[in-house]
Parts: sequence; C-alpha cells; structure tokens
Amino acid sequence: MWGKSYCARTKALHNGRAPRGALLVSPYKTEAPGSLKSSSRDSVKRVPLPSSSRISAKLGVKMHRTTRSPMMQTLVNSGMGIAPFFKVTVFEQEHFQGKCQEFTSECCNIHECGLDIIRSIRVESGAWVGFEHHDFQGQQFILERGEYPHWDAYSGSLSYHVERLMSLRPIYCASHMSSRMMIFERENFMGRSVELCDDYPSLQAMGWSMPEVGSMHVQCGAFVCYQFPGYRGQQYIMECERHSGDYQHWKNWGSHCQTPQIQSIRRIQH
Amino acid sequence: MWGKSYCARTKALHNGRAPRGALLVSPYKTEAPGSLKSSSRDSVKRVPLPSSSRISAKLGVKMHRTTRSPMMQTLVNSGMGIAPFFKVTVFEQEHFQGKCQEFTSECCNIHECGLDIIRSIRVESGAWVGFEHHDFQGQQFILERGEYPHWDAYSGSLSYHVERLMSLRPIYCASHMSSRMMIFERENFMGRSVELCDDYPSLQAMGWSMPEVGSMHVQCGAFVCYQFPGYRGQQYIMECERHSGDYQHWKNWGSHCQTPQIQSIRRIQH
Repeated sequence: MWGKSYCARTKALHNGRAPRGALLVSPYKTEAPGSLKSSSRDSVKRVPLPSSSRISAKLGVKMHRTTRSPMMQTLVNSGMGIAPFFKVTVFEQEHFQGKCQEFTSECCNIHECGLDIIRSIRVESGAWVGFEHHDFQGQQFILERGEYPHWDAYSGSLSYHVERLMSLRPIYCASHMSSRMMIFERENFMGRSVELCDDYPSLQAMGWSMPEVGSMHVQCGAFVCYQFPGYRGQQYIMECERHSGDYQHWKNWGSHCQTPQIQSIRRIQH
Repeated sequence: MWGKSYCARTKALHNGRAPRGALLVSPYKTEAPGSLKSSSRDSVKRVPLPSSSRISAKLGVKMHRTTRSPMMQTLVNSGMGIAPFFKVTVFEQEHFQGKCQEFTSECCNIHECGLDIIRSIRVESGAWVGFEHHDFQGQQFILERGEYPHWDAYSGSLSYHVERLMSLRPIYCASHMSSRMMIFERENFMGRSVELCDDYPSLQAMGWSMPEVGSMHVQCGAFVCYQFPGYRGQQYIMECERHSGDYQHWKNWGSHCQTPQIQSIRRIQH
C-alpha cells in the first residue's frame, strides 16, 4: 500500500546516498482516516546515520567547492541538465509578484542587476545569505530553501526594522554533517571554550553559562548565530571559508553587530 | 593545561550521562592568542551518541513525567536541594527590571498572579510555552533556557505585532533524543507522509515538496513548527501529551493559526 519510497534529495550531491535526516516520502496512502495508530512503523523509512558519514560528508564539502569552478558552469551551460546547486528568485513585490530576477551566484548590488527593491524571495536550491546593504554589508538574513512571501518571513530582528535587502550570495561551505566550530568565552580565542557540531536552540541549556560569546572559530561548514534563544534576533552567518574561519571579536561578526550576545547557534545545511 | 572537563548539564536528568550534543566546557586556557590552530582536538571533548541512546532517552522522558508528581514537589519543599526542572522568572519591565514573579508550574492568567504585564523573561530551567491570551490561547512563543530582555526577543511573527503574554506553562514532554513525529500532506493523516526525528530548518530542502502541511501526529516528545524556513514566523508547539499527539487539521494547531503553511520544524529539548 505504501509503494516504493524515494529520496527527494539532490542525488548528485551525495553520490546517491541519502544524507542523515533526509526525508523519504511515502506515496499516497489509501487507508481510511483514523487508522494512523495501526500503521506499522516499518512502512515509513528513516535514513540511518551511515557508518562512513565522515567520508561522505567530506565528499559533500568537496562537491560544494566545485560549484565555483568553470567546469561546473560549462556543464550547466552546455545543457547537460545538471541542476544548479544554488538558485534563488527574488521579486519586487510581495507574494512573488512583479518584476523578478533569478540568481545562481552572488549579486553585490541589486540595483546593478535591474531591480529597485526585493519584497519576496523563493529559494530553490542551496543556502544563501542576504544583506541589508550592497557589497554584503549590514544585517544578515539566512535564506534556506523555501518561500518567503514578504520581508517579515526572512528577517529576524524586530528591534531594527528596515525592509531592505540589497545584496546576496550563496553559502558555498554549508555542510550539515561535518559542520564544526568552537566558541570561546573571551576575545581572541581565550577563556573557556567548547566545540559545537550540532544545533543549540539554547546554549545555556546545554552548559554555556552566559548569554555572550567572546570569539569563535569555524573549522568546517557554516553556522548561524543568534542573539536570543530559539534562533531569534540578529543573525550572524559564520563560515569556515571566510576570514579563515576566525572571528576574534564580536565586531568581526558583521557590520551590523552591536553586542557579543549570542544565545543560540545552529548549522546551515545546503 | 586544559584540566578536567565537566558536563554542565543537569546530571539527575540523565543519570550522570551527558546527552548527545551536551557541551563539555573546558576551563581557562592560558596559551597565547593565535595558538588555536595548534590545539589538539582531543583537548576539547565531544560527547558521542551513546549506543544505548534510545534507552537513556526513554529514561529521560520518564523523568520528565515525574516532575508532575506530588513526590517531586514534596522533595523540593522538604529542602532536599533538588533544583526544579522548570523555572522561569518574568518581569514587568524590559531588561529584567521592575516587579517580577517566579514560576515553577503553569500560570493560566498572569493578572491572577499579581502581574499587569510581562516585558522580559529569564528562563532558568526547562522549556516553556507562553501564550498571547489567558488560558493558553492565542499566539504561542517557545521559551527555552536563556534571557529575553524584551518582547522582540521571544516573539517570532512581525506581521502580528501584539506585545502581550498572558499565560505560560512548562512543556513536560520535551525530550530531544527520542522526539518523533509524522507530517502528512493532507488533513486527517492522509496523503504522502514522512517521519521526523531531527531538526529541519527547511522542509523543502529535505524533500518535502510544498510549503504546507496537512496534518501531524506527534509520537514522542515535542516540536515547534514554523510558518517560514529558518524557524521564523508564527510558532506552533506540538506535543505528544496534548490531543494524544493528534493534529488532524491546521485549525487544531492553535487558536492563532490562520494557514496550513509550515516550512521548518525542530525538536524541543528540556
């Protein structure tokens, strides 16, 4: 009755192996409503953590890097049918109306790309970061795959309400399974420290005793750090490929950063 | 140089075993700045996923339930020194100023507890949910351990900006490691479905092909569902202990719910 399940995740990215956490979507169920409790758990498959997860994760990271090579771009242009790893469409009006523009790589100023303003966004592939100002300055907005029908949907900080997104770029090094970073109590990597490989909606609940972080070092992948628990407030995107992954002082976290307050951190996945 | 690392997580909760993802905080480091890259990774310990994680998770769930028993309350009152599993302090002014009140169990109407308004919150233990109206109605706000100095810090939906929190209660069944739920394409548990045991900042990135969910069933633990990707927008707390974990229609998700749009889901941990 369940039929054959399938993995909807981009197969090329992980050599045909579904990554941990991938959803295997079962096709239409024709049983009557109310029969949920009698369903066998075996009919909905979970993807177990592969024993060689670190190897496949490393492959995943390397494949991300190749998206920047001329070779991948040639393959796409030659019509060989490889879906771009990074694709976003932005619209001048809310709810995906009005003039629109598609991007598969960075845009440092939307005005130079023929747009006056961005009011809604549809991310079709990859993880992106949007910025309040051109040249990747100002407030940062993490943009993962999905639909953002208006500014409220992708912003995070109500205390600084400026409806503007002027530049955006892919997060090439996002790699959910191998993401790893360290946070330090004090600037310049001093004081107590801890390694993070997971998602922390509350750093304090997991043992970090204060609402601030002094400095950070991203060893692999990319993370979003938030001012408040539960992934709220100002967002700071931290990447292993930027500044060699070193963020010595809260002033390095972004031009919009006013405080060392960080209370939740999570990995970014492609 | 690193000294003895220690687990800051509440030991009683997991019988002395640090749960997956717990931070082991290393004490003060006295090396010079810039020596980060030469640090041995072994000096910062990560807690591996225990092979008997399901067993310890089940123990975790059972211990959560005992917080509601008279026995636990007696132990606390007798001064045996057991820290409450659930504790929150709310303040009438921003930045933890003004009149305040501490809670270790639910409050269905803050006016009856001597407060006019809540403007800042400090969650000291456990996961809580706050509601816009009394008797646990209206917008929902997930409140995990940490500091929320003003309304912006715990709200999530800018499109419905009402600075009010009138009732709050603990989320007793929150259990990170054993949380499990199913989402369905259509109401009444019909259509395509998938089981979730993880965090999904973008359901679409993980294979769910649309920005809506028809119905949900929570088998174990508690989750927060969000309107937009990246854990943004209206929040809906889904618990295995409420409605027998059944949420047949989006109208069951909360009295504030206006739409079946769900684009990110994550587990709630204690």
